[in-house]
Amino acid sequence: MRDVAVIGIGMTSFGELWETPLRSLWAEAALAALDNAGIDSVDLVTIGCMSSGLFTGQEHLASLLADELGMAGVPATRVESACASGGLAVRAGFAEVASGLCDTVLVTGVEKMTDVDGADATYALGTAADAEWEGFHGVTFPGLYAMLARIHMQKYGTTREQLARVAVKNHANGLLNPHAQYHLKVTVQDVVNSTLVADPLCLLDCSPVTDGAAALVLTTAERAREIAGDKPVVVITGSGMATDTVTLANRADLAELGAVKLAGERAYAMARRKPEDIHLVEVHDCFTIAEIMATEALGFFNPGFGGSAVEKGLTSLQGKIPVNTSGGLKSKGHPVGATGVAQVVEIVSQLRGEAGQRQVQGAKIGMAQNMGGSGGSSVVHILEVV
Amino acid sequence: MRDVAVIGIGMTSFGELWETPLRSLWAEAALAALDNAGIDSVDLVTIGCMSSGLFTGQEHLASLLADELGMAGVPATRVESACASGGLAVRAGFAEVASGLCDTVLVTGVEKMTDVDGADATYALGTAADAEWEGFHGVTFPGLYAMLARIHMQKYGTTREQLARVAVKNHANGLLNPHAQYHLKVTVQDVVNSTLVADPLCLLDCSPVTDGAAALVLTTAERAREIAGDKPVVVITGSGMATDTVTLANRADLAELGAVKLAGERAYAMARRKPEDIHLVEVHDCFTIAEIMATEALGFFNPGFGGSAVEKGLTSLQGKIPVNTSGGLKSKGHPVGATGVAQVVEIVSQLRGEAGQRQVQGAKIGMAQNMGGSGGSSVVHILEVV
Repeated sequence: MRDVAVIGIGMTSFGELWETPLRSLWAEAALAALDNAGIDSVDLVTIGCMSSGLFTGQEHLASLLADELGMAGVPATRVESACASGGLAVRAGFAEVASGLCDTVLVTGVEKMTDVDGADATYALGTAADAEWEGFHGVTFPGLYAMLARIHMQKYGTTREQLARVAVKNHANGLLNPHAQYHLKVTVQDVVNSTLVADPLCLLDCSPVTDGAAALVLTTAERAREIAGDKPVVVITGSGMATDTVTLANRADLAELGAVKLAGERAYAMARRKPEDIHLVEVHDCFTIAEIMATEALGFFNPGFGGSAVEKGLTSLQGKIPVNTSGGLKSKGHPVGATGVAQVVEIVSQLRGEAGQRQVQGAKIGMAQNMGGSGGSSVVHILEVV
Repeated sequence: MRDVAVIGIGMTSFGELWETPLRSLWAEAALAALDNAGIDSVDLVTIGCMSSGLFTGQEHLASLLADELGMAGVPATRVESACASGGLAVRAGFAEVASGLCDTVLVTGVEKMTDVDGADATYALGTAADAEWEGFHGVTFPGLYAMLARIHMQKYGTTREQLARVAVKNHANGLLNPHAQYHLKVTVQDVVNSTLVADPLCLLDCSPVTDGAAALVLTTAERAREIAGDKPVVVITGSGMATDTVTLANRADLAELGAVKLAGERAYAMARRKPEDIHLVEVHDCFTIAEIMATEALGFFNPGFGGSAVEKGLTSLQGKIPVNTSGGLKSKGHPVGATGVAQVVEIVSQLRGEAGQRQVQGAKIGMAQNMGGSGGSSVVHILEVV
């Protein structure tokens, strides 16, 4: 198996981008990554996208987007695992380069979510839950995560304020990220007083509906070293995937994200790393409770201690393990198919020392954790400067 | 790169299966393949599906289906490239085993198309074309392929009867396939007198709307040899993918399927094979003209000679290069995400000598060609008994 490096990164600004169609958003990110890598051709394009069918009436992105870039002919594939689609696009590109089937892969993620109204967006996102056993009964994602939050509060004493502090921290980080959807300082009071969406989750506990795209260029670590000159080379040292039951009702312990735990263990094993080795992590904070549960599942804190960790500042930019330095899904925005790729864009920026005002000093080992549905699937990557 | 073998195959009967939900269809095929392989666990599940979102209101199949099989925890991924989704699922599994990331992969394809009415099915399928430049103007797939047929007729003199003979042959083959949707002998007169859909294509030139699923188990060739005993081992020796412009309007030559040609060339190069080496092929006959054009693009006949080849019987069961021994999409049915996997199921059956009444004597090298949209993407695999 060959070592795989990231040699290019790019992303659009995230936001409500009504004037830009999906294909243009995608091309902007793809061209930025190719430009950043300094190359103009690849052996394969992978595309993470949750539901261009329901959001824009367009499937077959593999052909549409390769064509949009003037690359018709190039092999291309779209992958989907709800909001973990971007992470799977990274994995698909990683496998192709690792195997020797391809030398250079353009890994991308995209979602155009604001071409439909709010109800249709909620319907489209709801297809990540079990349509027959959950969606049929009217439950949507804020409701599912609200149940997870309630159980976590009951089992571990996690507080309403601790949830709010995730949003406060991520919005503070997002203020330092020019690509973020919201540049908005929020306080604990702002969060707990925002509109109640699904008790205990308020509006400012929820990630937004977002348009955006992100892209990476992967190649062999060997080639990356040749072209890097004196720049740092960022290698993917660990890649782990896992699923869990799609319905919450079938899980043994609702206070634990089993797929995240398993995917993390698999990534740690491949990279031969432990949680203590990681310098920063982007986790899938689609709701504030999700960040707390993800940091526990990845072993950064013991079960039940994720909430107090945020409260103590352990996950802030200067903390023990900075979490979501990009602003996370909460502030940066959550174009669902793009998110998993954008997380890796942030980690690579940090490992290269190019993260500007939100730079984590001395960051050499980072992690990206992407998640589908209410934790029904997860993908984790570990990246290191070598 | 490790050699990859197919050690298990399974599929549902194809048809209008109103009483069976997507997840049950899928599980039936998956369990059949696992049973055929004689194993009960895998390292990864890949799922080809075009649009479970539009057809059934359900995305996130990776989690849903792993769970349905009682395998929650296992890594899983869905891939999509319109009607080439199944072929991409094969490719994704191939890359994972070839790389060493996984040892054993369950490769699957599924589509449940009859839960929506005809207009909604046509809309969902139409998302494989360019929604803004083709779909917007009202063109649907019979129309797009009718244009390809007209151009092929004009440029090469391909006749209405030659198109019909594809349907006659494939329905004759389908009569010998217990899994086929239609067990129906048709004559040239039946085809040309059937309802006109998009001139020159009549109803019997078109593949149907179908529910169904298919599955394979892949592992390393080394392990396959260990467990095979005295049975033949079928190895994937070539894998090629390509795209073309998604819109017909942007192609240089509409009488040629460029993506099929490129994907075929890539598969031949990897397998170190030529068209003359192939003993039988499953091609993507979504419409009768597509089979003729695919056999030309894959190099079995010179451009313009695909039509006369059918007429001369060169592609029939006893011909020089039997094409679509399974009955093809035309007679076996076309559950779009399952098709690419079902093609490989047929090739493996033939290479194992298990194809019953439709067995091609002495078949040792086979090919499967899957296609998305009006040829906007294609995936080709070459399989050999070693």
